[in-house]
Amino acid sequence: MSILEKINSSNDVKKLMPEELVPLCAEIRAFLINSVSKTGGHLASNLGTVELTVALHRVYDSSVDRIVFDVGHQSYTHKLLTGRREAFSTLRQFGGLSGFPKPYEAADDAFIAGHASNSISVALGMAHARTLSGASYDVCAVIGDGAMTGGLSYEGLSNAAQSGEAMVIVLNDNNMSIAENVGGAAKMLRSMRVKPGYLKFKQHYRKLFLHLPHLYRFNHAVKEWFKDHLIPDDIFSEMGFYHLGPVNGHDVRELENVLRWARDVHAPVIVHVLTKKGKGCAYAELDPEHYHGVGPFDPHTGVAAPEGESFASRFGEAMCGFAENDEKITAITAAMSGGTGLEGFAARFPKRFFDIGIAEEHAVSMAAGMAKQGLLPVFAVYSTFLQRSFDMLIHDVALQGLHCVFAVDRAGLVGRDGETHQGSFDVTYLSAVPGMSIYAPASFAELESMLSLCLYSCEGPAVIRYPRGGEGEYRSCSVEAESLLRSGDDVTIVSYGVMINEALRAAEELKKEGISAEVIKLGRLRPNSFAAVRSSVEKTCRLVVTEDVCDFGGIGEQILASLAGLRGGFSYRLLNLGDGVVQHGSVEELRRASGIDAQAVVKNAKELLGRQ
Amino acid sequence: MSILEKINSSNDVKKLMPEELVPLCAEIRAFLINSVSKTGGHLASNLGTVELTVALHRVYDSSVDRIVFDVGHQSYTHKLLTGRREAFSTLRQFGGLSGFPKPYEAADDAFIAGHASNSISVALGMAHARTLSGASYDVCAVIGDGAMTGGLSYEGLSNAAQSGEAMVIVLNDNNMSIAENVGGAAKMLRSMRVKPGYLKFKQHYRKLFLHLPHLYRFNHAVKEWFKDHLIPDDIFSEMGFYHLGPVNGHDVRELENVLRWARDVHAPVIVHVLTKKGKGCAYAELDPEHYHGVGPFDPHTGVAAPEGESFASRFGEAMCGFAENDEKITAITAAMSGGTGLEGFAARFPKRFFDIGIAEEHAVSMAAGMAKQGLLPVFAVYSTFLQRSFDMLIHDVALQGLHCVFAVDRAGLVGRDGETHQGSFDVTYLSAVPGMSIYAPASFAELESMLSLCLYSCEGPAVIRYPRGGEGEYRSCSVEAESLLRSGDDVTIVSYGVMINEALRAAEELKKEGISAEVIKLGRLRPNSFAAVRSSVEKTCRLVVTEDVCDFGGIGEQILASLAGLRGGFSYRLLNLGDGVVQHGSVEELRRASGIDAQAVVKNAKELLGRQ
Repeated sequence: MSILEKINSSNDVKKLMPEELVPLCAEIRAFLINSVSKTGGHLASNLGTVELTVALHRVYDSSVDRIVFDVGHQSYTHKLLTGRREAFSTLRQFGGLSGFPKPYEAADDAFIAGHASNSISVALGMAHARTLSGASYDVCAVIGDGAMTGGLSYEGLSNAAQSGEAMVIVLNDNNMSIAENVGGAAKMLRSMRVKPGYLKFKQHYRKLFLHLPHLYRFNHAVKEWFKDHLIPDDIFSEMGFYHLGPVNGHDVRELENVLRWARDVHAPVIVHVLTKKGKGCAYAELDPEHYHGVGPFDPHTGVAAPEGESFASRFGEAMCGFAENDEKITAITAAMSGGTGLEGFAARFPKRFFDIGIAEEHAVSMAAGMAKQGLLPVFAVYSTFLQRSFDMLIHDVALQGLHCVFAVDRAGLVGRDGETHQGSFDVTYLSAVPGMSIYAPASFAELESMLSLCLYSCEGPAVIRYPRGGEGEYRSCSVEAESLLRSGDDVTIVSYGVMINEALRAAEELKKEGISAEVIKLGRLRPNSFAAVRSSVEKTCRLVVTEDVCDFGGIGEQILASLAGLRGGFSYRLLNLGDGVVQHGSVEELRRASGIDAQAVVKNAKELLGRQ
Repeated sequence: MSILEKINSSNDVKKLMPEELVPLCAEIRAFLINSVSKTGGHLASNLGTVELTVALHRVYDSSVDRIVFDVGHQSYTHKLLTGRREAFSTLRQFGGLSGFPKPYEAADDAFIAGHASNSISVALGMAHARTLSGASYDVCAVIGDGAMTGGLSYEGLSNAAQSGEAMVIVLNDNNMSIAENVGGAAKMLRSMRVKPGYLKFKQHYRKLFLHLPHLYRFNHAVKEWFKDHLIPDDIFSEMGFYHLGPVNGHDVRELENVLRWARDVHAPVIVHVLTKKGKGCAYAELDPEHYHGVGPFDPHTGVAAPEGESFASRFGEAMCGFAENDEKITAITAAMSGGTGLEGFAARFPKRFFDIGIAEEHAVSMAAGMAKQGLLPVFAVYSTFLQRSFDMLIHDVALQGLHCVFAVDRAGLVGRDGETHQGSFDVTYLSAVPGMSIYAPASFAELESMLSLCLYSCEGPAVIRYPRGGEGEYRSCSVEAESLLRSGDDVTIVSYGVMINEALRAAEELKKEGISAEVIKLGRLRPNSFAAVRSSVEKTCRLVVTEDVCDFGGIGEQILASLAGLRGGFSYRLLNLGDGVVQHGSVEELRRASGIDAQAVVKNAKELLGRQ
């Protein structure tokens, strides 16, 4: 029996002999590489945090103490150590283990994760709750350097520092984030890493007081007084934190010592840990960005099936074409140059390419400043992350009618990343932005044409939204607000984007059963008078709308509102994601489970016609 | 002729003799106190920035250079110096001068302002535009220490530092913000202020190189190398800024020198300026928070008419009552303890009161952490500022169904602060949050009852939304989702919150003309089946909905969607704020101009009945 097989909880980790820890970490790495090579998943960041996670479980009891992972894609070792080893073959599969911390999966998962930079705020809330309720559990946030570029983390730090609450913030610094991180915050961290004199002083200082937290606190106060009256210190100490590190993030014994010590200071402490993304796996160390999130691959070579063309890759190509002829165009990404397809643009137009780190709020406000002064900025961003910028879209962009373009990738269902990543809400929150135009291409050809419309035919803010992955059977190009793709008399089926393929398949299926369906594709979601839909429903008196976004404010509701008062009445079914909360699985599985696929359209259309 | 009367542009300020600057500042102060005492407005922050603004106009030409004011309530002197002196009697009046920078008012206003912390990001975007388009204008952001608690400012700083763009960030540090500012960020700034040795060094250093920016830059690089290898410096220098100051913000000659010098470094520079909020006006200096935003007052004594009871004050009292009996309740505010009515709570329950600074994102994530661990957090916040937290409401609160309460103040029209502050969007964006309950009290009595429902009868996130100011004629208490306030046969009128008073007045007016209107008040906006509305419309076949929020996703559209397919048809009018962008004026004036008041309801109802 391996060491790993003996471990089913935080407490099992604590029972291990110190000399078992290094072999355990090796076993975990082997397990992760083998398992993720079969299911796909986040590899590099998990390989980088094996020792850190083992050390956390030596110090904390995750069933009681609250370990809050930021973003959460580094939580595999945590799951492995807390009774979910057997379930790893189902990782990211429909109905299986989630790739992110999920309290509904295990009480050991303190909080949901997926979006970046919230962990310090959440942990502070938990620490306040602990103190106010007179409990004694410990609280720890684990945040990566990439997430530190998000302003929310700074708000959390600022408040945590002054709270006096006992809590530990582990800064997992891999000098990398998803792509190499950028900006002054990263520079600041780098400078903390490279000051050898300062580091040595800190190390000696820490060793001296390792078993004397109370003396350290007194001493810290004295030091603070001197610092306040002499020279400034680093940002964390200035804010009011006890600041430990940098610590070697692959020395599990050292990590355990420092973390235990930090916990026992009973004050706001930052532990700065240096890790290597992809650690212990040659190909992942060499190209950690590629192995950040991967599909199944050969565990020996790292080679995976080549990825096909996607809306993202076609968007990147189209951007290069437009930028070639228009010097006003700039491209902005929030640490997602690869994911959004902008790597080619970055290489060809480096002066007009801006990777601003995980900071979607800043991206939108900066774009607004650019547009105000005559540039034509395009912010490429995932639907779920643009939620962060809702206020800036209204306040900075829309109130002045500034012409900014938003390329909203991963719109609708995204699949295996689950509920924190589904693009369920963009049709709703983007429609609320004053003067917004919204295009929804259903094919690569439409992507390029509609991007051109966003750039050159819209005034004010304009959105082009498209899904993860590639196009379906529909490959035509129609940029009209409403296009009649198929005529029929019995029922009107409406959809947009790649979901139009479900509508077309349903119509084909219905035809076999003698039902004649009219299919209308929406190319522009806003503004849209839905005139063609209205004419069609006046004829068929039956309407099915299918879309992979939430019901509130979705196109289904918008059409219903526009049809209100239609004399004679009509019957209808709105197929959508309900409240927008959809777990992980393949997109096909999720469409089926949500009841928005071709089969669901057929079923509902038949019910409207009184045929079962 | 006074000096002030000679000035109609940035360039006129430049023509003044140096010895005219101090008298000019005195004239400006006298003008501001006199003018604001008649119109009301933001007094204290404008008195604090007189010298700073004059100095900015000595150095920059605001018709070409871009001065980006953060929040914007400190822009009166700027308006006064750029041709808008005569218009000051119309400040914040309907159709008059806005209290915030507005590009549609003058090209000297570089960008819209109202929400905090965006100025650095916007200015950086402008600086990029300047450089990419080969132009030579200068860019300057003016941000207060209060706005520095917002994470967006940190994202902007981080990116600006590394950009290398020529831009100046003026940190207007009044050690105050709206209320006294809080958190580690404030502590950091304080520590910069109180290091006399460091400051003296900086001052000498600066004087030495005042006329030698190129030498300073070389020297700075040498200093940077030493710093990187020896000790950490303050956060701004660590990030990569040239950092000047602190400078006395009331010495206009010194300010001019430093700003000119900062401009000519042609790199990212931070100028740390110390100002006193309310400067030069005894009562405003003594109580700057009270004189932050005021109605008309006696310019000699500062005494204003006492404010009546408001939804905010009644909310604060109700919170104390609930907290008395329930130790789980905590209250959170983002630097608005006065505005949200929580001052009494703060005094009585200091351990359960959290003023987290201008950081709405953090407030929601922290509340989620509290709720996860068993507390019952209530975040009191203005509707327009909660837009900042849209993602956290979904990701941190709703996905786990956490029971947090949001007291959404200033919902609907807020009046004189104008388009950046109107609560136009909350019904829409809050309805999109999975599992959200939304209550809309129309009276003080309902406020208390509905707060109780939010606290104890809801699961998951719950909102109670209420307007600025007090209740109207309607003073009853009905917490039902739908309440029939008045029966009638000819037309159904639906509204909620204090807008119900317009509906009731309209019904009374219609009665005089022989028209019988049915009035339905919505107490709970979500979930709501609109069953009573449906029954009523089936009877009357005519519907008028009036509300002071945007059309998209508003209750009008929601009702229409719920009534779709109603056989026999019906006619309707939705009265609302259209796209949600509404300028400044009194609430009554704005209701009339937007066509949502009693008169508009009467007119539309009569049109539906074919009577003009």
